[in-house]
Amino acid sequence: MKVKITVSLRTGVLDPAAETIHRSMGQLGFEAVTSVVQRRVFEVDIAKSDRDAVLAEAHAMADKLLANPVIETFTVDLVE
Amino acid sequence: MKVKITVSLRTGVLDPAAETIHRSMGQLGFEAVTSVVQRRVFEVDIAKSDRDAVLAEAHAMADKLLANPVIETFTVDLVE
Repeated sequence: MKVKITVSLRTGVLDPAAETIHRSMGQLGFEAVTSVVQRRVFEVDIAKSDRDAVLAEAHAMADKLLANPVIETFTVDLVE
Repeated sequence: MKVKITVSLRTGVLDPAAETIHRSMGQLGFEAVTSVVQRRVFEVDIAKSDRDAVLAEAHAMADKLLANPVIETFTVDLVE
């Protein structure tokens, strides 16, 4: 089964890269842009067929490896 | 309106970071993982109400600024 793990910065944590992109958009003529949020997405194939086991494993790997819990949050979705 | 721009590596382009994550997962006991794909997602708010204009603008900014067309592809979805 495939899961999608989306890692985002917690509300209030500054994202200088996204701010730079926002500013560059304005300079390139995309002046209607009011905000830019950047996230990291991991699509992970797990060779198990039990839906709950796959979701639990995805949560554990996001928590231990993919997200930094001090500044980031994550969501897990089953893709197929 | 809000758009989601997803930037992915083209098929065949190696992703050493994703390979490292895959290997680390195995070392942490997540041995059922068979593949890891990493993508970048940008959620962009555009202060326009015309659906087609917003999609066209999102395509243009992905093409000019967010993706490297030599090694990356992108998709654009309207979020709201």
